[in-house]
Amino acid sequence: MKIEDKLILPRGFTAAGTAAGIKRNGGKDMSLVVSDRPAVVAGTFTTNQIKAATVKLCMERLKRRTGRAIVVNSGNANACNGEQGLRDATDMAARAAEKLGLNPKDVYVSSTGSIGVPMPMDKIRAGIDALAKKVSHDGGNDAMQGILTTDRWPKCATVQLKIDGQPITISAFAKGAGMIEPNMATMLCYLLTDGVVDAKSLQTCLSDAVKDSFNRISVDGDMSTNDTVLFFANGAAENTPLTTRSKEWKHFVAAVRAITLKLALGMVKDGEGATKLVTIRVTGAKTEADAEKAGRAVANSLLVKTSWNGGRCNWGRVMDALGYSEAKVDEGRVRIFYDDVLAVRNGRPAGAPRDALDKVTAQEQFTLNIDLGVGRGSSYVYACDCGHPYIDINV
Amino acid sequence: MKIEDKLILPRGFTAAGTAAGIKRNGGKDMSLVVSDRPAVVAGTFTTNQIKAATVKLCMERLKRRTGRAIVVNSGNANACNGEQGLRDATDMAARAAEKLGLNPKDVYVSSTGSIGVPMPMDKIRAGIDALAKKVSHDGGNDAMQGILTTDRWPKCATVQLKIDGQPITISAFAKGAGMIEPNMATMLCYLLTDGVVDAKSLQTCLSDAVKDSFNRISVDGDMSTNDTVLFFANGAAENTPLTTRSKEWKHFVAAVRAITLKLALGMVKDGEGATKLVTIRVTGAKTEADAEKAGRAVANSLLVKTSWNGGRCNWGRVMDALGYSEAKVDEGRVRIFYDDVLAVRNGRPAGAPRDALDKVTAQEQFTLNIDLGVGRGSSYVYACDCGHPYIDINV
Repeated sequence: MKIEDKLILPRGFTAAGTAAGIKRNGGKDMSLVVSDRPAVVAGTFTTNQIKAATVKLCMERLKRRTGRAIVVNSGNANACNGEQGLRDATDMAARAAEKLGLNPKDVYVSSTGSIGVPMPMDKIRAGIDALAKKVSHDGGNDAMQGILTTDRWPKCATVQLKIDGQPITISAFAKGAGMIEPNMATMLCYLLTDGVVDAKSLQTCLSDAVKDSFNRISVDGDMSTNDTVLFFANGAAENTPLTTRSKEWKHFVAAVRAITLKLALGMVKDGEGATKLVTIRVTGAKTEADAEKAGRAVANSLLVKTSWNGGRCNWGRVMDALGYSEAKVDEGRVRIFYDDVLAVRNGRPAGAPRDALDKVTAQEQFTLNIDLGVGRGSSYVYACDCGHPYIDINV
Repeated sequence: MKIEDKLILPRGFTAAGTAAGIKRNGGKDMSLVVSDRPAVVAGTFTTNQIKAATVKLCMERLKRRTGRAIVVNSGNANACNGEQGLRDATDMAARAAEKLGLNPKDVYVSSTGSIGVPMPMDKIRAGIDALAKKVSHDGGNDAMQGILTTDRWPKCATVQLKIDGQPITISAFAKGAGMIEPNMATMLCYLLTDGVVDAKSLQTCLSDAVKDSFNRISVDGDMSTNDTVLFFANGAAENTPLTTRSKEWKHFVAAVRAITLKLALGMVKDGEGATKLVTIRVTGAKTEADAEKAGRAVANSLLVKTSWNGGRCNWGRVMDALGYSEAKVDEGRVRIFYDDVLAVRNGRPAGAPRDALDKVTAQEQFTLNIDLGVGRGSSYVYACDCGHPYIDINV
């Protein structure tokens, strides 16, 4: 399977991006994706108790499991805007539906940006009008730009595969840089395919893929009000309908998982102020849940992240984070490897030269292997370091 | 009650600090406090599952509830050093006992600094020898210096009060700057009094005072392996023994609480990279535990802390943190005040001008009042902002 680092829209999809004047810097801040026929829709959303109006609307729309279009704005999160926020989100969908000749219930909406700022609906309506005129099969790159906020680069991927001899395309574009943690924070991702896929199966596939990708990454431990992943399958490929029981289901799933993992890792690498990608693998935990807690405590420790930023191993801070995590830890059983260099054995220095450890930590990518030695639970999380730009971006 | 911003050793106590060569910069890195008679001892320690050897030793010593001396080194945490670490901690106490003519079991030991580095015992032994020769009633200031690590200044306080007409002194010195969170991380504090106090009562007083001071502060969410608070009451004042049932107990407790709160707030103000002290009060939570979870989520949000550093209100990030906290939150009921300026009502902007809110946030001290509106639980936490120096100090 080949993953391409570009966005090729599957058959039947068109897209556009435009600068509607929401962002002060004049950059693209609105995007539209349209399917020329009803698509089956799957989705996953933030678990934050405070949800943006657009998330609430999408969750409602998703009950019908069908859709035709997605309209997105960046620069304003439309969160904490009360009833007016919900009216604005509904209006966005209605405006797009009107201009595209669709049922408003078939239009999904996302927003990302500042919280608690009223939506500039005049600009947004004009933006939707412009997008509806512009959508084209070549509009994917513009659409990718319109959803970005503090991202240094857009994230996208395309896989083409054959199902029953029929060529099928799965592609996706996403945004996300800071504020990313367990359960997908401040990230938006749109997956599109021309495959014919059963609705429930599509949801299963998406939920599993999100669990092992976007929900495995950690940038700063904050979880956003706006996270949204939507997957449209419009069936333009006219293959034999795919379900979880299809012989070729696993190929479809593998492609989706490869795409979501690629995009998730792209978000970590683009973490605000981040210069490296660290895979934290925890084994030997009492339970899988314990392994996850231990890994996340390390991934979210600001002391650990700053030491990585300086290219220093400083495994003492890792031990400290393990110790205060809610996972069961027995100091005398802990082993820690930096890539394959053993740093800690039985909770004490294993004798590796500091230079050898710092050398691993100085790399752009490395793996921290933590064996808690108290059970069989294992898990992993993708983390990044934290440097000065994080503060510059967020003050 | 007057709290003095200096360390006046109570009767019967002597102290010293010295540069033993553990710190590379040549600064003072060892301290000793001695009581000329057996003192009643109370203590509280880190809840981190991974504890420094010195913490383990103190916890063992504390079972006897009595002591004569405390020896401390900075520059090396003596954590994650296995059996050798325990031997070294025991040797430190034994060496001090030998030089002072005491029972080794009456000597308590603390360490703070790097984790997983073997203790430079030659330097430490020589340091102890020097300290034992130097201790004097005027040695408090030197002792304060010897326990510091990344602190910008030492923290100390003294209260003098009368119990049954007898003058009593309670004084304390402490260190702590980064890595401070729930349950006292990387902080050391030594309280000394010449009062006669019942051992169990002293422990109750200390535990309660720590709960509402050191356990209410948050700098970066990390909890250390080394946190220690010790309270020595040597009885030199020869007052009628104080117990929880004494008429004047509440005056003693008030003095201890005032001291621990002053030192705890001093640690937040000295938080690595911090420029301001923010009191987060949460009311209207479902339970007290919920109120605490909500407050800590806000206090530990790196996005919130960086916005404070920039002097910006950015209450959307506060809402976001409340939403992902484990506390029950109903968006439509949340109210947030910055000092007395209402920023959020019913989960939406309350109409306060942004300038007015930013003005509050730009202050060196302000209070964030959060009313969750779903119950009667309340709590509070003292937090600080996060700026560039945090990263400079910790890379």
